Amino acid sequence: MNTDTATDETTGESESEPEPEAESEPKCGASSGDSNSSSDSDSRSEPSTCGASTGSDSSSRSSAEGSACGASSSGSSSNDTEKSKTREKVGATLEDFDAEPGQLTAVGLGPGHPEGMTERAKTALLEAEHIVGYTTYIELLSAEITDAADDLYDTPMCGEVSRTEEAIDRTLAGNDVAIVGSGDPNVYALAGLALEILESKGATASMVDFEVVPGVPAAQSCGARLGAPLVNDTVSISLSDHLVPMPEIESRLHAAAKESFTITIYNPWSRKRRENFEKCCEILLTHRDSDTPVGIVHGAGREDERVVITELGELEELGESELVDMTTTIVVGNEDTYVWDDRMVTPRGYETKYDY
Amino acid sequence: MNTDTATDETTGESESEPEPEAESEPKCGASSGDSNSSSDSDSRSEPSTCGASTGSDSSSRSSAEGSACGASSSGSSSNDTEKSKTREKVGATLEDFDAEPGQLTAVGLGPGHPEGMTERAKTALLEAEHIVGYTTYIELLSAEITDAADDLYDTPMCGEVSRTEEAIDRTLAGNDVAIVGSGDPNVYALAGLALEILESKGATASMVDFEVVPGVPAAQSCGARLGAPLVNDTVSISLSDHLVPMPEIESRLHAAAKESFTITIYNPWSRKRRENFEKCCEILLTHRDSDTPVGIVHGAGREDERVVITELGELEELGESELVDMTTTIVVGNEDTYVWDDRMVTPRGYETKYDY
Repeated sequence: MNTDTATDETTGESESEPEPEAESEPKCGASSGDSNSSSDSDSRSEPSTCGASTGSDSSSRSSAEGSACGASSSGSSSNDTEKSKTREKVGATLEDFDAEPGQLTAVGLGPGHPEGMTERAKTALLEAEHIVGYTTYIELLSAEITDAADDLYDTPMCGEVSRTEEAIDRTLAGNDVAIVGSGDPNVYALAGLALEILESKGATASMVDFEVVPGVPAAQSCGARLGAPLVNDTVSISLSDHLVPMPEIESRLHAAAKESFTITIYNPWSRKRRENFEKCCEILLTHRDSDTPVGIVHGAGREDERVVITELGELEELGESELVDMTTTIVVGNEDTYVWDDRMVTPRGYETKYDY
Repeated sequence: MNTDTATDETTGESESEPEPEAESEPKCGASSGDSNSSSDSDSRSEPSTCGASTGSDSSSRSSAEGSACGASSSGSSSNDTEKSKTREKVGATLEDFDAEPGQLTAVGLGPGHPEGMTERAKTALLEAEHIVGYTTYIELLSAEITDAADDLYDTPMCGEVSRTEEAIDRTLAGNDVAIVGSGDPNVYALAGLALEILESKGATASMVDFEVVPGVPAAQSCGARLGAPLVNDTVSISLSDHLVPMPEIESRLHAAAKESFTITIYNPWSRKRRENFEKCCEILLTHRDSDTPVGIVHGAGREDERVVITELGELEELGESELVDMTTTIVVGNEDTYVWDDRMVTPRGYETKYDY
C-alpha cells in the first residue's frame, strides 16, 4: 500500500533542501515584508528561480509563464482573457480586482497517489479552472485532472505563503481555484493560511465560497501501514520549530507522553533541527519504557519507502540513519501498545470487557 | 459538504440506543464469555434479534439468512459451497477451518457517503467477496459496490466484537472479506480489534494478508466543515468510558487543555454518560478562557446535520440541547483560535514570520 510523505509543508518538502520555507521564501517571496513596494515585483519576475512551472509536458500547464513566485507582475484585472485575468501585482487586495470572485477550494490529496484521494477531492479538482500546489503534488495528479484544468500553477521550492497568495489572487480575479496539498488541509497545512490571507486582502471566505475538502492525513496513512497503532486517544505533534517555539513543542511532548496518548510525530528531522529529534527522544524516554513500540514510515508511497517497527530506546540512534528525515512520520505507541506479526497494535480496551 | 457521524463504534451507533455495545452485546454476543460452550450457539440462532440482515432489496445480501450475530451456528467448513463455506461454530479457531484463508481488509469509508471514500477503499470493496459492517454503513455503500459482492453481512445493533469475529471466521473459511466502518480504521475503530481477534484464533495477520485502508477521520471531516480549526498540534479524545476509565480520560483532558493543543472530542454524550460531558466542560474551562471558540458538528452528512460555532463557556449548556449527542463531534480551539466569517481558524504561526 502506498502512503504519503509526512512532510510538513511549513518546514520542508524536499530532501535536498530540508528547510525550504525558511531558506527560500526570501529568495522568491511574493509575500515577504516588502510586498507593498511595487518596484520589487520586477526582481521577482525571473521564472528560473522558483516561480512558474517550466518544462511541463502538459498543454494546460502554460499560463504561469513569466510569472515568478507568488502573484505575477504583468497584466491587470482589466485584461481578462483566460490567461491574463490572473495577473495582479504583488500584495494585491480585494480592491485591485474588478471581477466577480471565483470559488476557492482547499483540497487534501491524502497520501498523494490518485488511489488515496477521495471522490470528492477528485470532483473538486475536475471542477477547478486553476489548480495551485507544490510541484511534487501537482505531478501526482492524474492526466484526467490536469487535462481538465485551464491552468496549473506549481512552485518547486517557493513556499506555501506565496503559493497560497497566488491561489487567492487568481480566485479574486474570477477563477475557480483549487489549492492542493498532501494529507488533509487541516493537518499542518493550508486551510488556515488561505483564510488568513483572504482576510488580509479584505476579502471573506463567503465571498469565494471557500470550501475545505478533507483528505487522509499522514498519521492515518502511516498508521495503516503499521497496523493498528492509533486506535485510542492520540496526539499529533510537529517537531518543526520554524513556526512554533521549541519550548512549546517540548512541553507538549511531555504532556502527551505523560498521559497514555499514542503520538504521531510529524517533521522529525532536518539538517537544521537535528537537536529537536534528540530532545524529543529524550523527553519520550523520561515517561515511557525504552521497549515501547515505535513505528517509522519513511518516504511513504515513494520508491524508497521503508516501514520499520522498533523500540523507543533505539529511536535516537535510528535518527542518525537515512531512515529518519523530512519524509518520515513516526508513531510512538503507548504503555499498552505491542507488536504482533510485524504489526503495531494499541488495544482499544475490548479485552477488558469481552472474551474473544 | 457532507461529513460523517462522529460516533464511536465502541460505545454507540444509534441515537435510540446510546450505549448499544454495552447493552446489546450480551443479547447477541457471539463473543461473550461463554463462547466456548457449544450449546450456546443454539440460543443465538434467532435472526430476528440482531443478527442477519433482513428485508434487504439487494440480491447479494442474502446469505446471512438464519445466522445470528457473530459466527453462525449451522454448517461446517467441509460444506464449502459459496454460501455455506462461512458457517462456523461460535468461537471457532484456526483449527476449525480447512480452507486456505482469504484476505482480510479493514476499510475506512471516511465520512460515509460515497464521495468521501478514497479510490483505494472503493477498489478494496469491489474486490472483496464479503463485506461486513454496521447496517448504517453498509447501506451507505453504492449499488456498484454492493452488487459486486457475493455477500453482505451487516448487524444493526450487535456490536463490533461479534461482527469482527464474523468477518474473521469468513476470512479463515476462505473468503476475501472487507470489514468496513466510517472514518478511519485506526480512529476508535476496528483495525486493532481485528488483529486482536485474529491472534486469539491462532491465526496471523500475514496469513490473511491483512491490510488497513485508511479513510478520512471524523476530526478531519468536521474540521473541514468548521474551516481550519486543526492546523496545529492536536489531540483526539473520546469521552466514552465504556472501554477507558473516566479518571484516565479526565487526566488526558487536563493535559491537552493545559498545553495549546486543539482538541477533537469524540462521543461527547450519551444518556449514560451525561456527567462525562459536564466534567469535560469543567476541565476545559479550568485551563482555557470561556470565550475560546468551539465548533460543534451534529449529525454530519445526515439530513439533520447542524454546524454551530460557539464559545467554550456556552458548551455545557448546549449539551442540554439536541445539538450534542452521540452523532456529534466537537472541536475545541486553542488560545490562538479565532472565528472569522463563520469559520474557526487556528493560526499555524505564519503571521509571526511572514507579512501578508
